[in-house]
Amino acid sequence: MAYSHAMPSPTSTERAQRQAEVVQALSACVPQHALLWQPEDTTPYECDGLTAYRQRPLVVCLPETEGEVQAVLKTCHRLGVPVVARGAGTGLSGGAMPHAMGVTLSLAKFNRILDLDPVARTARVQCGVRNLAISEAAAPYNLYYAPDPSSQIACTIGGNVAENSGGVHCLKYGLTVHNVLRVRGYTMEGEPITFGAEALDAPGYDLLAAVIGSEGMLAVALEVTVKLVPKPQLARCIMASFDDVRKAGDAVAAVIAAGIIPAGLEMMDKPMTAAVEDFVKAGYDLTAEAILLCESDGTPEEVEEEIARMSEVLRGSGATAISVSTSEEERMRFWSGRKNAFPASGRISPDYMCMDSTIPRKRLADILLAIQEMEKKYQLRCCNVFHAGDGNLHPLILFDANDPDQLHRCELFGADILETSVAMGGTVTGEHGVGVEKLNSMCAQFTVEENAQMFALKEAFDPQGLLNPGKVIPTLNRCAEYGKMLVRNGKMSHANLPRF
Amino acid sequence: MAYSHAMPSPTSTERAQRQAEVVQALSACVPQHALLWQPEDTTPYECDGLTAYRQRPLVVCLPETEGEVQAVLKTCHRLGVPVVARGAGTGLSGGAMPHAMGVTLSLAKFNRILDLDPVARTARVQCGVRNLAISEAAAPYNLYYAPDPSSQIACTIGGNVAENSGGVHCLKYGLTVHNVLRVRGYTMEGEPITFGAEALDAPGYDLLAAVIGSEGMLAVALEVTVKLVPKPQLARCIMASFDDVRKAGDAVAAVIAAGIIPAGLEMMDKPMTAAVEDFVKAGYDLTAEAILLCESDGTPEEVEEEIARMSEVLRGSGATAISVSTSEEERMRFWSGRKNAFPASGRISPDYMCMDSTIPRKRLADILLAIQEMEKKYQLRCCNVFHAGDGNLHPLILFDANDPDQLHRCELFGADILETSVAMGGTVTGEHGVGVEKLNSMCAQFTVEENAQMFALKEAFDPQGLLNPGKVIPTLNRCAEYGKMLVRNGKMSHANLPRF
Repeated sequence: MAYSHAMPSPTSTERAQRQAEVVQALSACVPQHALLWQPEDTTPYECDGLTAYRQRPLVVCLPETEGEVQAVLKTCHRLGVPVVARGAGTGLSGGAMPHAMGVTLSLAKFNRILDLDPVARTARVQCGVRNLAISEAAAPYNLYYAPDPSSQIACTIGGNVAENSGGVHCLKYGLTVHNVLRVRGYTMEGEPITFGAEALDAPGYDLLAAVIGSEGMLAVALEVTVKLVPKPQLARCIMASFDDVRKAGDAVAAVIAAGIIPAGLEMMDKPMTAAVEDFVKAGYDLTAEAILLCESDGTPEEVEEEIARMSEVLRGSGATAISVSTSEEERMRFWSGRKNAFPASGRISPDYMCMDSTIPRKRLADILLAIQEMEKKYQLRCCNVFHAGDGNLHPLILFDANDPDQLHRCELFGADILETSVAMGGTVTGEHGVGVEKLNSMCAQFTVEENAQMFALKEAFDPQGLLNPGKVIPTLNRCAEYGKMLVRNGKMSHANLPRF
Repeated sequence: MAYSHAMPSPTSTERAQRQAEVVQALSACVPQHALLWQPEDTTPYECDGLTAYRQRPLVVCLPETEGEVQAVLKTCHRLGVPVVARGAGTGLSGGAMPHAMGVTLSLAKFNRILDLDPVARTARVQCGVRNLAISEAAAPYNLYYAPDPSSQIACTIGGNVAENSGGVHCLKYGLTVHNVLRVRGYTMEGEPITFGAEALDAPGYDLLAAVIGSEGMLAVALEVTVKLVPKPQLARCIMASFDDVRKAGDAVAAVIAAGIIPAGLEMMDKPMTAAVEDFVKAGYDLTAEAILLCESDGTPEEVEEEIARMSEVLRGSGATAISVSTSEEERMRFWSGRKNAFPASGRISPDYMCMDSTIPRKRLADILLAIQEMEKKYQLRCCNVFHAGDGNLHPLILFDANDPDQLHRCELFGADILETSVAMGGTVTGEHGVGVEKLNSMCAQFTVEENAQMFALKEAFDPQGLLNPGKVIPTLNRCAEYGKMLVRNGKMSHANLPRF
């Protein structure tokens, strides 16, 4: 299990003593009902959306006010207790997986929309507000919050900030980092800290982008100011079929190369369409080797012109069938399949592991063919759903977690996808974060010096390494154990990496 | 002088010995003609656009290749020699002011446009390329680079990145930080480092925004990839007169409050219009207490509608006269006065000091009236030109640098403006950076903890503090000497600040 590399397990006596000490200290910070430590109470927190890895936390704390959060952080800092912040627990890389000797800080109670300014087109919300709730609150003003992770009915803006979440419309409208103006929270020492501003710029180093996607390792975010954008007047979606995955991959590159930025450009392979069609009846072409969903939004004139241009490019790339949504109802039906790809995979397999690497768009077909070879090698099935326009892959590896050998093969399969992506010029994560899932693969992507640089930045905020330790950045030891020490420019230095 | 606080002066013998040592070591890195150390050769580098402060560097080095830059940095790192990178030397806060015992690294030879992609709308350029040269190269494709500092014919993109430069059109199009995709360079250790990417996002912590505006303290940038934007079809400019600075200031706030983001929204007071009119004959209303320039750009329909709406708001705010440019020639004439405000001040005074604070827009009139009081207090004249839409002030204090008492009063006047801006809810810098000029005023803006946090970030990149030392972030000692130790929330901790 990925997690065990980082920390020696304490004995059960050590754990019980520490638990009593932490519970007593935190009782001075929050009401008794806000503290959970019995196994039956902490078990629901043992994992996030990456269910393959589980760990009960020492204590779960559910503060309700900023003062309580601050007191909890100060206390944990004083006692040297690790803190893992948690939103809705929908993350897919184990970013909110608990620490065996740490406090899981659930921010579920911070669920209020504090301010919505339709003229400035901003909303100031607490970290526990759900992604979709922001768009629902903005709807009366014909505005919405653009990033739309598939989990948007449940996931919170705090988690979106931690993971720099994306979604099907991020190709055109940007990721979380492009749609957030300000993040306010507390450091591990319990000191207030603000990143960004509601103005164009803020004084001091501009660390807003660094904290977005930092996976809870720099600070605990309590309040987020997001940008709202006007709802497009019209959106239409093309569904295109291809009899060959290479043609479908090349069609994606051709659309972008033609200078078109679709509102969404998604790809699904045959096993994926079969799984979702059986579940939601989206009307997908089940004979196609791959289908593309290609959306245009804007004014009716813009949409008409863009749909015509995209259709032409898709036909020129060898699409065997093209249909264009003629109503909002039909468009939502096209998307229903894509949005339900994960639960559809859950229906046909006891478990699935969703990977999240990126590659240059022109390598889409290459990676699909490589994954087909890996299916044979690891003897596991894989359904593929890609944010193809972004080059962001979500292969869903199907396995049975109750079979240790299958879990092991699934881990190897996943690592193979990630490292093949890096070899093709891509990265190990697109929008789900590194968490615990991709720690080993980070060794294949970053050099010892690069990882040391990332630790140096973390140390500038959290010198004791108490915020979400053991995640995101692999230690030198870990990379050595994994057998990957990335050497670039023929050089391998023995930087003195910390051992969080 | 601001500079002397930071460093004890070496004896002339110590300096000569060190100079010989550094010249000899750098001779192994660059050709002989690329090294300057005689006073007649280094004197031209003794200041940047902040001419009130001067210091000859130990050595000037003008590398021509990346390999040379890397070798120079490695050598300076080994010898513990401070390095100050320099572009065109047009900066106004002393960011490129030399270190008495350091190497000034002139990047003037890095002046090639490496790539311009009109479809992706990006340009990849070397750091020494002039700001305007990018727009000139993009002009055949009807594209341009949006940020337009007044020094754009001379200043380089490397300097723009260091200072996060703005310009009159940044209100609508954003600052440097909003228009740069990627920065590639070297750390003080001579290690290659890349911030950002040509894609929407990059792996690792997102530090692009942190390095933009970091004033050469984190890394040396050699290559910058910028965004290009389509030239608007049409631009028209309103010139509005006001008989009262308060009405003019309130008009600025009213335009923004009406939900309009003009392409530019500038304000000049009566002393300023008098100075520029005498110089460039822009046709300004010399009877007005203040004038506003208010630009709209876009399609002809958009411009027509926006000009009408802005005119209505300006009239409602008490404008005594409004004229709208009817030709591109007339529009350029309106702007000629604004763009020549600095040289116009140079004509009417031996020296001028350009300040650069920001305030909330609604306080524009308050700060103007406060500055009028300061003119009496410090017995110096001040012309005011503001990026009013951004709340960014550029008071130009007129003085004679050959009169030490005038220089001293000018420094006090400047500090008073900066600290009054902070007291009004603003900041000490808008777009010129902190450099050496605003170090003391940083003590009034940031707490001890906040400055310690900024030092911690710098240390993550440059633990020895060799890159542009003694600038931007004030030490605890310095704030104590200046008599300002900002205490917030009733707390004053004695953080162990480094003494760079």
